[in-house]
Amino acid sequence: MTTPLRLGIAGLGTVGVGVVRIVEAHRAMLEARIGRPVEIAAVSARTRDRDRGIDISGYAWEDDPVALARRDDVDLFVELMGGADGPAKAATEAALSAGKPVVTANKAMLAIHGQALAELAEANGAALRFEAAVAGGIPCVKALLEGMAGNAVARVMGVMNGTCNYILTRMEAEGLAYAEVFEEARALGYLEADPTLDVGGIDAGHKLAILSAIAFGSRVDFGGVELQGIERISIDDIRRAGDMGYRIKLLGVACATPEGIEQSMRPTLVPAASPLGQLEGATNMVVIEGDAVGQIVLRGAGAGEGPTASAVMGDVCDIARGTVPPPFGQPAAGLASAPRAPAATPCAHYLRMALRDEPGALARVATVLGEAGISIDRMRQYDHPGPEAPVLIVTHPCTPAALAEALRGMAGTGVVAGDPVALQILGD
Amino acid sequence: MTTPLRLGIAGLGTVGVGVVRIVEAHRAMLEARIGRPVEIAAVSARTRDRDRGIDISGYAWEDDPVALARRDDVDLFVELMGGADGPAKAATEAALSAGKPVVTANKAMLAIHGQALAELAEANGAALRFEAAVAGGIPCVKALLEGMAGNAVARVMGVMNGTCNYILTRMEAEGLAYAEVFEEARALGYLEADPTLDVGGIDAGHKLAILSAIAFGSRVDFGGVELQGIERISIDDIRRAGDMGYRIKLLGVACATPEGIEQSMRPTLVPAASPLGQLEGATNMVVIEGDAVGQIVLRGAGAGEGPTASAVMGDVCDIARGTVPPPFGQPAAGLASAPRAPAATPCAHYLRMALRDEPGALARVATVLGEAGISIDRMRQYDHPGPEAPVLIVTHPCTPAALAEALRGMAGTGVVAGDPVALQILGD
Repeated sequence: MTTPLRLGIAGLGTVGVGVVRIVEAHRAMLEARIGRPVEIAAVSARTRDRDRGIDISGYAWEDDPVALARRDDVDLFVELMGGADGPAKAATEAALSAGKPVVTANKAMLAIHGQALAELAEANGAALRFEAAVAGGIPCVKALLEGMAGNAVARVMGVMNGTCNYILTRMEAEGLAYAEVFEEARALGYLEADPTLDVGGIDAGHKLAILSAIAFGSRVDFGGVELQGIERISIDDIRRAGDMGYRIKLLGVACATPEGIEQSMRPTLVPAASPLGQLEGATNMVVIEGDAVGQIVLRGAGAGEGPTASAVMGDVCDIARGTVPPPFGQPAAGLASAPRAPAATPCAHYLRMALRDEPGALARVATVLGEAGISIDRMRQYDHPGPEAPVLIVTHPCTPAALAEALRGMAGTGVVAGDPVALQILGD
Repeated sequence: MTTPLRLGIAGLGTVGVGVVRIVEAHRAMLEARIGRPVEIAAVSARTRDRDRGIDISGYAWEDDPVALARRDDVDLFVELMGGADGPAKAATEAALSAGKPVVTANKAMLAIHGQALAELAEANGAALRFEAAVAGGIPCVKALLEGMAGNAVARVMGVMNGTCNYILTRMEAEGLAYAEVFEEARALGYLEADPTLDVGGIDAGHKLAILSAIAFGSRVDFGGVELQGIERISIDDIRRAGDMGYRIKLLGVACATPEGIEQSMRPTLVPAASPLGQLEGATNMVVIEGDAVGQIVLRGAGAGEGPTASAVMGDVCDIARGTVPPPFGQPAAGLASAPRAPAATPCAHYLRMALRDEPGALARVATVLGEAGISIDRMRQYDHPGPEAPVLIVTHPCTPAALAEALRGMAGTGVVAGDPVALQILGD
């Protein structure tokens, strides 16, 4: 008889329940694949008696996830509580300090404390794996960290927040306003307790920072991600983008430049016919560009019980099968903090603004753009009932710095009401 | 100082040269990622002095790849010669017998001798990895074998022969006949020495058999792949498929049914707007469906120096970093031969035939279809200068058995000239 691998699972929400279901449903398959049985020794959650659709009475219970992580009968700690700090971090640290491997789906914790946790893991000879933290069921961490280990990575991109993509595609399909779909998503339980994590791009930014660290061999740097949420995207923006052959996606881009690492997560116009443009609903996509392999595109469910639990179990199997690489692909102690490079790659931009209906207003905006060195690809003023005219401008490629200068200039004209919506346009 | 990992590379064609280039260009990166330097100790190829664009004078030379595999200064044997038998197999066996890990891009060898080689590898405690054997640079073996280890896999599909996809997309784009593009591809060096390996679907069938074994935990069974090549696809087929919103792809499908494992590689009409339908040129795509994760789609370059060498190096890094799973994901000795299930899933079919221009001919064909229980979705007879009329029929979903019965019936009518072209249609 081989020794079983005994899991301690902290967190019995959607993902935790999914992991329990896989372990229970696939005992023989898992044992065949990893050479030893996988068992659940103990579990922990905020409340013990909630009906979760699974029977946890056969597993030991711990109120305290730290105590769970320290149990002698737990070989591998599965952290599925969430939250960058608090019990998730304390329990993860307890497990790693005890030399126990940890599998987690916690992007916030890794984006903020990834470096310290990786160092702790390595100092204790314990594995720390987090495939489920990025893009749900898509094995993108593995692809980047292992499959593409022979590549210098130039760029990582992706649509990595299913909720935002759900909101944007539903607005488009039903012609609904942002606020309506936002409320609908909240009612359906699609949004985090603090919805800004989703719609503000923070959750997706966490994921991008994790991929970026692996891709470029630098310390995870969530603070270096330029963030722009989807809150100001209107149904008109979606329609006008569509008229031009684009769809709006919350797109993360991380690239290595001579100046440092550029990381951004913001609503972006992508060609409607491109793989990114075709993403519907909660589907995620990660695009990785390596110097040898070229472009690899990975698509799959970005959230949900099964997909996320699948990613957790992939990590569990890796750990059970043998050693695994350091959490970020190379020893954490040797990882440098890369300089933060501000976004500098020129690209076309979509600008939508409300223009006071007075003589010369449009000319003043055009002048400001010209003074910033930005040339206009197209400009259109729409019919309007009120005193302010909706104006749409698509620029030729310009640097983010030039765009920022133009936006400052517009504010000074006195003819633009409020802040324009400015979105980058990704070429084909 | 850590001990270097010393490679012996047998085969210095496109992929071998690519591996040498990566090792030389990325010394520091590779050492950081795997914790020890990677060096090339010795190489072997058919001719020593050919200009390959790289300098191999710094590496020991062996005329005999078996001798290379046995060298004391070779820690890991990289087999890039190709060919199911002969020197590739002999050298792989020599390395594994000596307990040395092997990385290979050799799909033919694995599809035919994969079980025996996996058993030999495991008996000697040596790793055997072959990411580069399937779909070039796409880390699909890793995704299936490791990332999706927690899933019971229901189906694996893919476009896995870049040359066939190049031929089909070029016929479509330029309106050229199959024979023209075939000769062009041959002149460009895109075709194997025996082109049937490509256009007959054999090469792609090898790849499917490898993925299928991992997916379903059964012995690799290339003989169980139903093969149909692209040789009979005409530009008219491509155009007519296009008119109906489809594109023709050489598509592999492997699925687990209660009867056994169904494997097929054949030209298939796929929706033009689907991810499979949008593949251009030599790009490959692998679609994996797991019970937990749902559908994962992986896209990338299916061949070429950089992508294939990237896959080889991913395996090299895995081996350098530590233990790796058994070649097919679970101990080979325990793998069963799964029963071969004939294709049984009903699907719509595209039929193109040449009908003798005589009264009642079309009615006789329609009658034969009806007698086989196949109903017709659409039927069209085209203008024709000669005595035979081109007829196109699209059926409603029917089983392959019913279709075979209908095709036999048509042969008996005496009104169908030659064999009809029959292609399956994959739904949305």
